[in-house]
Amino acid sequence: MALIVQKYGGTSVGDVERIKNVARRIKGMVDEGNRIVVVVSARSGVTNDLIARAKAITPNPDEREMDRLLACGEQETIALMAMALESMGQKAVSRTGAQAGLFTDSLHTKARIVKITGGDILEKLDEGYVVIVAGFQGVNELGEVTTLGRGGSDLSAIAIAASINADICQIYTDVDGVYTADPRIVKKARKIPVISYDELFEMASSGSKVMQARSVEFARKYGVVFEVRSSFNNEPGTIVKLEVPSLESLVVSGVAVDKNQTKVTLSELPDQPGVAAEIFESLGKAGIMVDMIVQNIGRGGKANLTFTVAKDDASKAEQILNEVSGKLGCKVSLTGDIAKVSVVGIGMRSHSGVAGTFFKALAKENINVQMITTSEIKIAVAIDLADADVAANLLHEAFGLDGDK
Amino acid sequence: MALIVQKYGGTSVGDVERIKNVARRIKGMVDEGNRIVVVVSARSGVTNDLIARAKAITPNPDEREMDRLLACGEQETIALMAMALESMGQKAVSRTGAQAGLFTDSLHTKARIVKITGGDILEKLDEGYVVIVAGFQGVNELGEVTTLGRGGSDLSAIAIAASINADICQIYTDVDGVYTADPRIVKKARKIPVISYDELFEMASSGSKVMQARSVEFARKYGVVFEVRSSFNNEPGTIVKLEVPSLESLVVSGVAVDKNQTKVTLSELPDQPGVAAEIFESLGKAGIMVDMIVQNIGRGGKANLTFTVAKDDASKAEQILNEVSGKLGCKVSLTGDIAKVSVVGIGMRSHSGVAGTFFKALAKENINVQMITTSEIKIAVAIDLADADVAANLLHEAFGLDGDK
Repeated sequence: MALIVQKYGGTSVGDVERIKNVARRIKGMVDEGNRIVVVVSARSGVTNDLIARAKAITPNPDEREMDRLLACGEQETIALMAMALESMGQKAVSRTGAQAGLFTDSLHTKARIVKITGGDILEKLDEGYVVIVAGFQGVNELGEVTTLGRGGSDLSAIAIAASINADICQIYTDVDGVYTADPRIVKKARKIPVISYDELFEMASSGSKVMQARSVEFARKYGVVFEVRSSFNNEPGTIVKLEVPSLESLVVSGVAVDKNQTKVTLSELPDQPGVAAEIFESLGKAGIMVDMIVQNIGRGGKANLTFTVAKDDASKAEQILNEVSGKLGCKVSLTGDIAKVSVVGIGMRSHSGVAGTFFKALAKENINVQMITTSEIKIAVAIDLADADVAANLLHEAFGLDGDK
Repeated sequence: MALIVQKYGGTSVGDVERIKNVARRIKGMVDEGNRIVVVVSARSGVTNDLIARAKAITPNPDEREMDRLLACGEQETIALMAMALESMGQKAVSRTGAQAGLFTDSLHTKARIVKITGGDILEKLDEGYVVIVAGFQGVNELGEVTTLGRGGSDLSAIAIAASINADICQIYTDVDGVYTADPRIVKKARKIPVISYDELFEMASSGSKVMQARSVEFARKYGVVFEVRSSFNNEPGTIVKLEVPSLESLVVSGVAVDKNQTKVTLSELPDQPGVAAEIFESLGKAGIMVDMIVQNIGRGGKANLTFTVAKDDASKAEQILNEVSGKLGCKVSLTGDIAKVSVVGIGMRSHSGVAGTFFKALAKENINVQMITTSEIKIAVAIDLADADVAANLLHEAFGLDGDK
């Protein structure tokens, strides 16, 4: 008897058979008395095909037209999904992002949500329809289609859940929940039944790619309770909400490993005010996010500045920094041979001794820490890439996260 | 220095290279000082793929969702075409049917145009843009995407040309104009430089499938001058307009052959008022168009009724007629072994002797005529399928249409 928004990603609706399977699942939930809104992505592969065709026309396609092109992928899926439901005797109607009232700014290919009304979704639900909404897309004030960038369909689902005040937003994906660590790295990782936005946010920004940080942030801002779960089974997933009653009094909820970072070192920097600002501003202008930052004052009034960027941004960052370094007279060096390993937990706020446990665990195997950052609910370190998996297992055990078996 | 609407079909925009070729052609015409609106179809094959996917979901897809699905094909093409032009330094912007103000009724998959405003097309042309419009699609009063059915992109182009009062609407296709006869049947067929709507209309409804009769009718109603020409060369095509000054004082403009007809005979019909009406009403309700009709009164007050329907409709027609015949006590027989051969020409209005020339030509080769219909500008006969090509050649020669070489 709940109002539920469900989001299915590209793999879950990858072909006609999978679309039918999802439709059956939806119909089952409607038959139990729930009102369902479904947000879907393009079938897996479709978006890449569209991009390839655009790139074959021109290496730098116009972004407004790119959005028009990309929006086709989701429009196909909503129509097919609505047909599948109708063919099972379940009333269903499809809605584009624009029809669902998802208004964005005009930053084509990475638009930001400005307003979300839900359009006539509630009305259609009252009439007994399942409403199928195209994820990833919105509309700007000129009436042009926009797209929300990576992870956009998750964001659409959460925004729509907020607009209609849904009881829960279920994010169906190819993982079946949030784990205390990546099970491919830590064999004893367990599924977390309930986690807070803040914890998931830190896990996500530390490389647990269950969801883009942006969607988690949006959910937290509007208090949307969501669940990450698998579209290939009926197991409960991980519910994400504001505060989690600490049943097990666990200090740490999970360990995250991010191997997609590059360490950048600027050495022999003049130790003057404004130098760091100049460097980070020029990176920021290019849209490059800087993660961990460490600065040391070296000999002779020269400083070393070290930070990490995403591997994808590394070559762009290097190019920008080479220009800046010429002006500042410093040296630039990059290495991709690092990993960021983090422990995350709301419990850390009220527990002392976390840092002690953390570094003692790493010391066990003589793992050398290159950089450290901390927040209220996180400790993160940069270490040698080769040490990452060992470190994750050590930390998982040290914080009592290992499962019983 | 003209305002031109150009329509490119699925073959002309079939792949990335062809899209680029069309873009180059458009840019060339803009560089000559013309203002260009382009209406495009889906890439050839795309619409069929979408239909196949829908049919794999359910044999009877919901028609509203079918329209949503089919509209994706054109949306892809408009985006790619706009990108291609932009990449050549030509400002271009894409518009959906809805954005171009093409309003239709709600007969999904075969919607009829109710109103066409052109949206902001003229404004964008004034700003120096080429405007690319998705053919085949419109929007109903609920804001739902609709599609116009077969030949819909031609109709879109003509409707848009009407709405912005374009100087000409060029229909680019894989034939290079309208011929005096099908060149595959009549070797001496020639391209017709100028033809009237009425003549093309009769040619089209007689099986010359250059354009759907519906589009020609729309053009005539709103006085849109259009040209049928090839997208693969730069030859002038055939211009279609209201009145054609008869430069060559030709009585007949062309010969059309339609091999896609089935002859239906109802024999031993009671010769009572209302019998024919009952038969044609039941066919009409099923959307079956009846073409040639002949009725004879036979012996004993029984009548024979013979007419033709499109081959595609034959089995549906047979089913309906078997029901009706049971009630009326008549016999139903069908044969697909016929062809309709027509001569068409505005000049026939003011010339006598056309029928004489016509039947004398057929008599030359002892071709037996099974049915005859005439209009002000057309004589059509149903003959044996095997005689069709010979008849077309005889008529082409008899009416002086054979080329010089």
